Amino acid sequence: MFRHTKRLQFEARPERPDPVYARKLQELIGGAYGEMTVTMQYLFQGWNCRVEGKYKDLLMDTATEEIGHVEMLATMVARLLEGAPSTVLAESVKDPVMAAVLGGMDPQQAIVAGGGALPNNSQGVPWNGGYIIASGNLLADFRANAAAEAQGRLQTARLYNMTDDPGVREMLRFNLARDTVHQKQWLKAIEELESDGLETPIVPNAYLDEENQDHNHTIWGLSDGTDGPKGGWSKGKDGLEYLTDPQPLGGPGTAPAPDPALYGTYSATQDAIGTVKGKAQAKAKKATGK
Amino acid sequence: MFRHTKRLQFEARPERPDPVYARKLQELIGGAYGEMTVTMQYLFQGWNCRVEGKYKDLLMDTATEEIGHVEMLATMVARLLEGAPSTVLAESVKDPVMAAVLGGMDPQQAIVAGGGALPNNSQGVPWNGGYIIASGNLLADFRANAAAEAQGRLQTARLYNMTDDPGVREMLRFNLARDTVHQKQWLKAIEELESDGLETPIVPNAYLDEENQDHNHTIWGLSDGTDGPKGGWSKGKDGLEYLTDPQPLGGPGTAPAPDPALYGTYSATQDAIGTVKGKAQAKAKKATGK
Amino acid sequence: MFRHTKRLQFEARPERPDPVYARKLQELIGGAYGEMTVTMQYLFQGWNCRVEGKYKDLLMDTATEEIGHVEMLATMVARLLEGAPSTVLAESVKDPVMAAVLGGMDPQQAIVAGGGALPNNSQGVPWNGGYIIASGNLLADFRANAAAEAQGRLQTARLYNMTDDPGVREMLRFNLARDTVHQKQWLKAIEELESDGLETPIVPNAYLDEENQDHNHTIWGLSDGTDGPKGGWSKGKDGLEYLTDPQPLGGPGTAPAPDPALYGTYSATQDAIGTVKGKAQAKAKKATGK
Amino acid sequence: MFRHTKRLQFEARPERPDPVYARKLQELIGGAYGEMTVTMQYLFQGWNCRVEGKYKDLLMDTATEEIGHVEMLATMVARLLEGAPSTVLAESVKDPVMAAVLGGMDPQQAIVAGGGALPNNSQGVPWNGGYIIASGNLLADFRANAAAEAQGRLQTARLYNMTDDPGVREMLRFNLARDTVHQKQWLKAIEELESDGLETPIVPNAYLDEENQDHNHTIWGLSDGTDGPKGGWSKGKDGLEYLTDPQPLGGPGTAPAPDPALYGTYSATQDAIGTVKGKAQAKAKKATGK
Amino acid sequence: MFRHTKRLQFEARPERPDPVYARKLQELIGGAYGEMTVTMQYLFQGWNCRVEGKYKDLLMDTATEEIGHVEMLATMVARLLEGAPSTVLAESVKDPVMAAVLGGMDPQQAIVAGGGALPNNSQGVPWNGGYIIASGNLLADFRANAAAEAQGRLQTARLYNMTDDPGVREMLRFNLARDTVHQKQWLKAIEELESDGLETPIVPNAYLDEENQDHNHTIWGLSDGTDGPKGGWSKGKDGLEYLTDPQPLGGPGTAPAPDPALYGTYSATQDAIGTVKGKAQAKAKKATGK
Amino acid sequence: MFRHTKRLQFEARPERPDPVYARKLQELIGGAYGEMTVTMQYLFQGWNCRVEGKYKDLLMDTATEEIGHVEMLATMVARLLEGAPSTVLAESVKDPVMAAVLGGMDPQQAIVAGGGALPNNSQGVPWNGGYIIASGNLLADFRANAAAEAQGRLQTARLYNMTDDPGVREMLRFNLARDTVHQKQWLKAIEELESDGLETPIVPNAYLDEENQDHNHTIWGLSDGTDGPKGGWSKGKDGLEYLTDPQPLGGPGTAPAPDPALYGTYSATQDAIGTVKGKAQAKAKKATGK
Repeated sequence: MFRHTKRLQFEARPERPDPVYARKLQELIGGAYGEMTVTMQYLFQGWNCRVEGKYKDLLMDTATEEIGHVEMLATMVARLLEGAPSTVLAESVKDPVMAAVLGGMDPQQAIVAGGGALPNNSQGVPWNGGYIIASGNLLADFRANAAAEAQGRLQTARLYNMTDDPGVREMLRFNLARDTVHQKQWLKAIEELESDGLETPIVPNAYLDEENQDHNHTIWGLSDGTDGPKGGWSKGKDGLEYLTDPQPLGGPGTAPAPDPALYGTYSATQDAIGTVKGKAQAKAKKATGK
Repeated sequence: MFRHTKRLQFEARPERPDPVYARKLQELIGGAYGEMTVTMQYLFQGWNCRVEGKYKDLLMDTATEEIGHVEMLATMVARLLEGAPSTVLAESVKDPVMAAVLGGMDPQQAIVAGGGALPNNSQGVPWNGGYIIASGNLLADFRANAAAEAQGRLQTARLYNMTDDPGVREMLRFNLARDTVHQKQWLKAIEELESDGLETPIVPNAYLDEENQDHNHTIWGLSDGTDGPKGGWSKGKDGLEYLTDPQPLGGPGTAPAPDPALYGTYSATQDAIGTVKGKAQAKAKKATGK
Repeated sequence: MFRHTKRLQFEARPERPDPVYARKLQELIGGAYGEMTVTMQYLFQGWNCRVEGKYKDLLMDTATEEIGHVEMLATMVARLLEGAPSTVLAESVKDPVMAAVLGGMDPQQAIVAGGGALPNNSQGVPWNGGYIIASGNLLADFRANAAAEAQGRLQTARLYNMTDDPGVREMLRFNLARDTVHQKQWLKAIEELESDGLETPIVPNAYLDEENQDHNHTIWGLSDGTDGPKGGWSKGKDGLEYLTDPQPLGGPGTAPAPDPALYGTYSATQDAIGTVKGKAQAKAKKATGK
Repeated sequence: MFRHTKRLQFEARPERPDPVYARKLQELIGGAYGEMTVTMQYLFQGWNCRVEGKYKDLLMDTATEEIGHVEMLATMVARLLEGAPSTVLAESVKDPVMAAVLGGMDPQQAIVAGGGALPNNSQGVPWNGGYIIASGNLLADFRANAAAEAQGRLQTARLYNMTDDPGVREMLRFNLARDTVHQKQWLKAIEELESDGLETPIVPNAYLDEENQDHNHTIWGLSDGTDGPKGGWSKGKDGLEYLTDPQPLGGPGTAPAPDPALYGTYSATQDAIGTVKGKAQAKAKKATGK
Repeated sequence: MFRHTKRLQFEARPERPDPVYARKLQELIGGAYGEMTVTMQYLFQGWNCRVEGKYKDLLMDTATEEIGHVEMLATMVARLLEGAPSTVLAESVKDPVMAAVLGGMDPQQAIVAGGGALPNNSQGVPWNGGYIIASGNLLADFRANAAAEAQGRLQTARLYNMTDDPGVREMLRFNLARDTVHQKQWLKAIEELESDGLETPIVPNAYLDEENQDHNHTIWGLSDGTDGPKGGWSKGKDGLEYLTDPQPLGGPGTAPAPDPALYGTYSATQDAIGTVKGKAQAKAKKATGK
Repeated sequence: MFRHTKRLQFEARPERPDPVYARKLQELIGGAYGEMTVTMQYLFQGWNCRVEGKYKDLLMDTATEEIGHVEMLATMVARLLEGAPSTVLAESVKDPVMAAVLGGMDPQQAIVAGGGALPNNSQGVPWNGGYIIASGNLLADFRANAAAEAQGRLQTARLYNMTDDPGVREMLRFNLARDTVHQKQWLKAIEELESDGLETPIVPNAYLDEENQDHNHTIWGLSDGTDGPKGGWSKGKDGLEYLTDPQPLGGPGTAPAPDPALYGTYSATQDAIGTVKGKAQAKAKKATGK
């Protein structure tokens, strides 16, 4: 169960409105690596966690913090939109240059949300559950978390450069800091899963002896670049090896004759295309009882 | 530019058809962590890669391999569907138990694809570009790659248990092996980005000195579990610290008065709700030129 | 900012596992009228609320409760999946009837979530932000809330009939009760917005005098049923009137000649189709500078 | 079955083209509360209606009208786009300010539709069936309808302020009027469902006696605002009561031990994390027949 | 403007309910090639048509018919669901085989629609506007129409085999017939666009002289199959020619050095990876004013 | 299996950056008729093709080429974005007109991709698998292919007019040429399917004798335009005939009484609405065992 306090985790007050920037900030709310994603990803991972104790607690602590980050950003968006011109008669819109600048605004922040934030990314695409993962395997999931926090901090840093408003920058400096903590904690938790003996570096630690042993250490050089083998990954360390002229191991990729009742195009004799339609039709009729 | 050989990278021939399993395999084709995802993720990362040489070559080599994995799986699906009953008059459907089993089939594999694979997951949701990331920052992206291969191998292992067909299992043992290689190579490449001096552990290596230094090392204990601080992440190692009773730092999360022309509900005086409608309307009329 | 306690708002413990039912419960988690929807709808409405005080507090109170409902349902799903057969060698799967029953399971709950809940509906479609609305106009939004709680309680009642597990039913009886409270509170808040003088019955209370006065009271009978006018809505009450043979008021719905540079099909003279291609092409060449 | 007349329900002719506004109007066509939504929502409700007579007729009358509204708006969009510059050589584009203004255009209206409307919202997101509801319960659905017409009229009013073209405004004054009628009729129909004895205020009128009677009248104060209890909803009227310090009623939200064949992270003894991997693996091997 | 009659275009009455088949029929309602698609595709094409007269009339006639097809199918679905068991206590569900068969039902038809049709496909994916096209170029669009009717009739034929209910089959025989007419009419209209001189076989009839003349007649043999050149398309007819060993014409696919303020990974000297981080950072600081 | 060469199929080098145009080009990458669509459509058709030989080889040859087209366009986008201003301190952004022009940029190309291409269309909507079709019936699929190439070439031609950069235009002249070839080859392959005797003009060539013979040649005039019958499609050629006053053939479109356990609104006697609630509830209680 959750509780809420009306105070924000950190201040989110811009020095001045900036409706064009309010659109860009939507990426941090409803983008694939925005705060809705980390909120929902950590919540579902926490609820799905089968190891009671420190890992589950870390998940729930961080998930709960992230809901508050959506709150901070949604509040910031509303404040950045203050006084954004909503009518053709507004003074600012009479200046063609200003009108043009405002062409970069998110039209739905006005039309749909009445001057507030949306559960969308910076292009207006709604957030969706396909962005998140909660597999029950903590190593796989913590890797996804460390990756998500990296993308999130990267986007935050890019957005930091796109404003010079001191209030916005102050909030983003806090967000950058939190993304630093969260990267560190997931990287540390990955180490700890291994040192606790719960997981080993390859996910999952099953079938390592049974998987195809001829092909679990070779990198297939299927592009014509010649620098791939220069990487540390091909120097035998970790047992990896670069194949520079790999050959296919399987036969031709053919599909079997289709069920006649599905009316796929088919010629019974590959040498005599065109003679078999009658037979195929007859077979179809028989099969379908017509 | 690409070229294609008709031979599969590895054999994909089941011993016997299994239309119910053909639905489950769709997860590895068009799911969020299926082969379409790694194909497109590595292609876009390769095209977006600004470091010519070993990293870009590794991306393009692996991307090119993954297209062939979609091919293997699509071929396997077509073969697993061979002879699946497509009419109500088929013998198998007359047995009620068999009819019931067939209720677990993917209806679109028959109705839409005529006995073939779809660009969908195991629930029929179409693959979409929101599953992939190519940020231009290789550390952030390689973390996402290592995470994707972990989820992919995990799902493959789960699917391995759901069949006892020797042909399917042989292919999956190959897939497990490839996912092992790919996990290893991205983990190794992450190390190498750091040893090459291109990236540092926190993504991006910008603003580390400028981010909020008071809040880039504390984990906020916002759930009431008490085990979070027991993890290695709070023992001062890596400079992290657990706050057990963190307090909000910001003021109340309020939104400013809305533009009257947007007709949001608003009362000018918080102490006298109900008296201000007339004024708000008047203001709206004035603002909108009515 | 939010805080979390590990205890559930209400118990969510089934008497026995039921993996088929676990799929159906997904509708209450990630369906259009599930708990993720009301959570996010109330949060965004609360953050976007411009009337400090009782309305905003009611929004935040209820939003915070709903996060806990997602938690209850996700926990219930994990428990219902306990012991669900995940391998072909499980005893239960050897019984063909049982195998068939299990065909009704959600394949992703096993393959993707490892025996847990997903942010999806009962058909596997991911939850998305397009399900929610936070317009800033409280009357419009509270109507949407009362509607959402009605659909949610309706679906809960239908699902109640689909199980006879006492533990599941006990939880659903709690959910039914909460949906009753929430319906009541939003209906009451709608009344109060009007009695507080903040809104009037037609949303928004703007342009009521300026809208087309000839057409703001007539119901157009465009289907041939004759019972429409028998409703209370056509008896002059509320000023509504049923038009039984309404005629179109506008001219033909034509689109103007397209820009030649867009290569839409067009014939300059409607009487001489076929003679104008040359001219259109010439015009296109000129316009596009070729 | 349907029939079509080529005359529009109302005129949709702008005084002058305005390609930037043409993008904004897409919200009323393919947005979540646009005309495609009400068209499809009322059609599916009408087809799914089990009460022959006045309710069904009202649904089909209104649904049929709404198709014509999509037509009006699509026609308006095509007319607003007349002469919009489609080439870099157009005169208007040579003026940098004008070029900038045109940056606010919908690129797909030119590239995809050749100067026409799209089945998308103002951000380019395609309309989808997840926006509509037809539950078979008329009270639940009519509430959704009254809410949809409120959001629709609100968005129309906002868009009204964003243009001063007399022709567009004349059409929007008609749309405002129709949305007024439709709000009134659904509100009236809601009353009538109750006065006809078909439904009672809480949807559905089932399980009211069986739902949890301890929790169907309390509002849980889970945010720290203190104004919630000041609302009419907590004064005992309608039997509602505000809990200011509600406590969780359930036990901890734990998930059961996972099936070993799903490879979730798990430690059999919470006190001895790290010692159980061997056992879990052994169990997995046994369960999966390896 | 549209009008509606309550009589169906054709009868849609099954001899007996069949809830499993009701799910499959959803493909014809809300699938990519279902009736919602042709309805919306023809409506938007008609509204976007710039050639007044026979083409536009044909579009509007057919569009209007298709709305009635959605109606027929939605009605059929409701009738097929009559008496489908909705509670665990229903007699039919007590028989485990029958329970298993019912596992193939669409859960949302009961939980969401209360025994009616949904705007979804047979897997529960909501219909969306991305399925349709209305480009303003009639030749391009009529080709899409002929293709859509082909896919639609193919799916209908497949579904015809999946039922032996005489009532359903009677309706589907009507649908097959209508899809035959519509295929014929669009193929005929394609011919007529050319004979009317409005379009030529290559869409659009622009830039045919200016496009790259070296590469507008060669088929590139990029897969290793050797039968491609045996087709009529490579015999010089229509001027096409098969290249059996095509070589890339462009240089390497490289991306330029990124803007430092975007924090993409970059090494200024490809020969000295690892030495440039300091410089890149310095450049970033300068560029971003830090 | 696939292989990759680092050289592009054709050069993709603009003379100068143009970030606004880079957004528009996204339509050709991830739009419904962009290169991702034809890539995936031809791959899945090839893998699903049951006719070994020339048709399958043509599919795989063309599919493999199209992957290279995504590569060309993604490379072009990265080059068009070179030097696009990413910070508020960039010189160009200080000029308000330039800042306004830049409002037309794709925000995600900077924030998410760091100056690269995305798997999205020009509005930011991610590509999805619902855009493609691979039915197994080659006639149906080749029609879809000819239609897709027509739309693709049309969009390319429109985009050609929107730039005057010689390098971009040179690439687009190549793309136009390839789309010409591909239109020709699919049209030719359609002819050949028929001349080979594999398919006949109506898809599928099944049930032509069994479909409803009264309704497989009439076009229903359901709109009031009078020009429809003037088309060649109604002159008896191809056996088509225009019905100018078609009448519905079915009875009223009614839905049966719902299962009481689904709580749809229902009145048992249409003449006595309001008297049956008690009975319906009683029936529901009995049915649901309460």
